Amino acid sequence: MKKKKLKTTVRKKSATRKTTKTARPARKVALKGTVRKSKPLKAELRHIPWSSVEVEALNPLLGRHFVVGQNVMLARVLLKKGCLVPEHSHHNEQITYVLEGALKFGIDGKEIVVNAGEVLTIPPNMPHSAEALADTVDLDIFNPPRADWINKTDSYLR
Amino acid sequence: MKKKKLKTTVRKKSATRKTTKTARPARKVALKGTVRKSKPLKAELRHIPWSSVEVEALNPLLGRHFVVGQNVMLARVLLKKGCLVPEHSHHNEQITYVLEGALKFGIDGKEIVVNAGEVLTIPPNMPHSAEALADTVDLDIFNPPRADWINKTDSYLR
Repeated sequence: MKKKKLKTTVRKKSATRKTTKTARPARKVALKGTVRKSKPLKAELRHIPWSSVEVEALNPLLGRHFVVGQNVMLARVLLKKGCLVPEHSHHNEQITYVLEGALKFGIDGKEIVVNAGEVLTIPPNMPHSAEALADTVDLDIFNPPRADWINKTDSYLR
Repeated sequence: MKKKKLKTTVRKKSATRKTTKTARPARKVALKGTVRKSKPLKAELRHIPWSSVEVEALNPLLGRHFVVGQNVMLARVLLKKGCLVPEHSHHNEQITYVLEGALKFGIDGKEIVVNAGEVLTIPPNMPHSAEALADTVDLDIFNPPRADWINKTDSYLR
């Protein structure tokens, strides 16, 4: 897999932001290196094979790549059996669709096993953890996009 | 597949709307039977196997079911080879991920073939058409949810 692909794309977006005027109100953007919120990307037509988007290895059991739209993000998350995602929460609405394998969620005081072919909708700010019961391919959809994933400040996963 | 499932779910949501106060500003909602815009659903934790969501047959070559969140919708679209989706546009941002098969899009003056394992990001209001080059399973993600799909006013597909 080509290592530079994802970074190149992200850089291109940043460049676009600086030169593109939009009707949106100005939003607070922190200085380079301390970015907490990211401005929405410009919506544009893009054709992206997943094979062209580098899989980021967050730990030996957890890989991830994603496509970022203007207000929505689609991530492909690859978990090896036994991978633990510690409890966390975020303001982003989440829809999880397990394509292969199974994830056991700890959420809202319950354990919910989401098998292949099943979906879990997770409201904003609801704490949740997950354990991969088998090697798993999972799609995560977020609104808005996860700024902490884009900016690599998601320390709970690293 | 149980025929009543999807309808039951939709009715339940409507009931929730009427009894739930939110901090959101009031939005214009048309009378029953003439609904054009749909209020955002309450975000809630739901575990939904796709097998429990009725596939709506829009025409002999096109089936669809979907899960609706508060600000995002995930649809599983099933197209038989030769299925044509006529040109249309919508204000909703779209991310399409082809899981199986292939779709040939007509978009932005170009033909783009999206094969299995590939993604297309479609900006709001960009007209597009599609043709299934093989039996296809396609995921469509929308922000906001497609009110015309929910309200069955998507006559271009029927």
